[in-house]
Amino acid sequence: MELLKLSEVKTISSIGGGPIGGGWTAFFLSKGFNVVSYLHDKNEEDVFMKIVNTAWKSLEKLGLAENASLKNLHITSELEKALNGVHFVQESAPENLELKQDLYSKMGRLLPNNIIISSSTSGFMMSEIQTRCSTPERTVIGHPFNPPYILPLVEVVGGKKTSKSAVQWAFDFFKFSGKEPLILKKEVPGFVATRLQEALWREALHMVDNGEATPLDIDKALINGPAPRMVVQGQCMAFHVACGEGGMATNLDQFGPALKWPWTRLQAPELTTELRDKMVNGCNEMAGDTNFEILASKRDEAIVSVLNALKKKS
Amino acid sequence: MELLKLSEVKTISSIGGGPIGGGWTAFFLSKGFNVVSYLHDKNEEDVFMKIVNTAWKSLEKLGLAENASLKNLHITSELEKALNGVHFVQESAPENLELKQDLYSKMGRLLPNNIIISSSTSGFMMSEIQTRCSTPERTVIGHPFNPPYILPLVEVVGGKKTSKSAVQWAFDFFKFSGKEPLILKKEVPGFVATRLQEALWREALHMVDNGEATPLDIDKALINGPAPRMVVQGQCMAFHVACGEGGMATNLDQFGPALKWPWTRLQAPELTTELRDKMVNGCNEMAGDTNFEILASKRDEAIVSVLNALKKKS
Repeated sequence: MELLKLSEVKTISSIGGGPIGGGWTAFFLSKGFNVVSYLHDKNEEDVFMKIVNTAWKSLEKLGLAENASLKNLHITSELEKALNGVHFVQESAPENLELKQDLYSKMGRLLPNNIIISSSTSGFMMSEIQTRCSTPERTVIGHPFNPPYILPLVEVVGGKKTSKSAVQWAFDFFKFSGKEPLILKKEVPGFVATRLQEALWREALHMVDNGEATPLDIDKALINGPAPRMVVQGQCMAFHVACGEGGMATNLDQFGPALKWPWTRLQAPELTTELRDKMVNGCNEMAGDTNFEILASKRDEAIVSVLNALKKKS
Repeated sequence: MELLKLSEVKTISSIGGGPIGGGWTAFFLSKGFNVVSYLHDKNEEDVFMKIVNTAWKSLEKLGLAENASLKNLHITSELEKALNGVHFVQESAPENLELKQDLYSKMGRLLPNNIIISSSTSGFMMSEIQTRCSTPERTVIGHPFNPPYILPLVEVVGGKKTSKSAVQWAFDFFKFSGKEPLILKKEVPGFVATRLQEALWREALHMVDNGEATPLDIDKALINGPAPRMVVQGQCMAFHVACGEGGMATNLDQFGPALKWPWTRLQAPELTTELRDKMVNGCNEMAGDTNFEILASKRDEAIVSVLNALKKKS
């Protein structure tokens, strides 16, 4: 099958009238695409438009494409019409496996087989969703992060029957549309970002459960501690740069024993030479030729700009 | 013992010549205090001043106090001189328990017993550090987050022998000096922020270990996903607002079963009614009278301002 050129994508079908479907609809409109949104029930339209209009306010501030307009939105409750002539499908139907399997069975028949179908699901893997689809090669996960109209991340991963070219096309298309997609190495429950967030969340629940912190304490600690740095440097580069010239190697070689300490209830993996090298090489590659002093000063500048931006808001 | 009025604090002793001691020194100078910094060895002075000068650049952009100046810094390698006549001590000596116990024994004798001593330690609890101090009532943990001159969080907790009034004084003083202190409910290894960060970090190590993600994947996922929201809303309020009017109650009652799913290797605690209510009430208190639509639109505005601030930097 020959996939479309990215520049040929003019019209996108967004399936689902909830906050995720509405968020995607607004996002694609803001980038200048035509969007056909499928709502299961015509009566959902008012709530749906409220979601779209709310998202639009933020998208305007982030910058609209030249030809972007809410007028490029069409709403329908007929699946066939929602799929007719579209160049890409983003599915955000309710998180119900049978419902999704049924939907992919229908979409598989209704859509030309060179049209990529991407699912917003956070709870299922594409290998499960695509089981009853007659053309599963072009079905992928494209998992956004809430709120989906603002946050750039889209996690892209195929199922067992998905073709590699479909995964690559979805990645390229999300990038082209202004998102920050990430191709996952494996299908794993929760993908990457939710797994990391969920580890933190479970530790938070433990702390509240043990009377070690309140929800307010948790939130204050995050907002004033790790978060302003994490928006600038991920956890790997944060540790790499914090350790000065020695970087991640110093972090693991020197503080490795701390992984045995009961800081959180999550047991760390065995720090094998292989794992150590994967972490160290990964960080060195990210740093490239830039030395740690420049990395640290760029980090500081960016954190300052984030804190100053937030100060202006409050 | 009668503790000082906050307005009486003019001169601060900062113990330690590393990045944390240097960071605290720069921070207190930027707020208009006199600082006497103790370096173990006079030869550390060049490296120390480089840390202070680097931090100063960021502090200038965040806004200096009227009378702030690097000229208000005095450096000494004699502990007695470093403590003479000061109104508060921030200790950032190397993470070595015996060394710290010895230091607190000396400081306990040298300082009038109404002067609060705060430790930057991340690895020890004050109950361990204060064992050989003759005046342990005024010794507290005041744990900053790296980089300590920029990030607002200071976690405050006493040891078994610390007085409640000392903990409260330290909290009040950090707040007065422009930090965002947090009094911890219990002495627990890693305090709050590091425990949460460490849970995330251990999950990240597991993912790299299993070939599910590279360090680059981890960092991209965080920076483009949870982080821009987390700097605006902590994880509790993020979930509370994401669930609409039902808030945290909906989150736990509806998605509680997902806590059994293998999203991360960290087992969640049993979701008892008590834990549920603690989470729900905590979030409702944080939300106060503000309805979820306003909370969501404030969140979006703030995330947009963060993303736009970062866009300008790159």
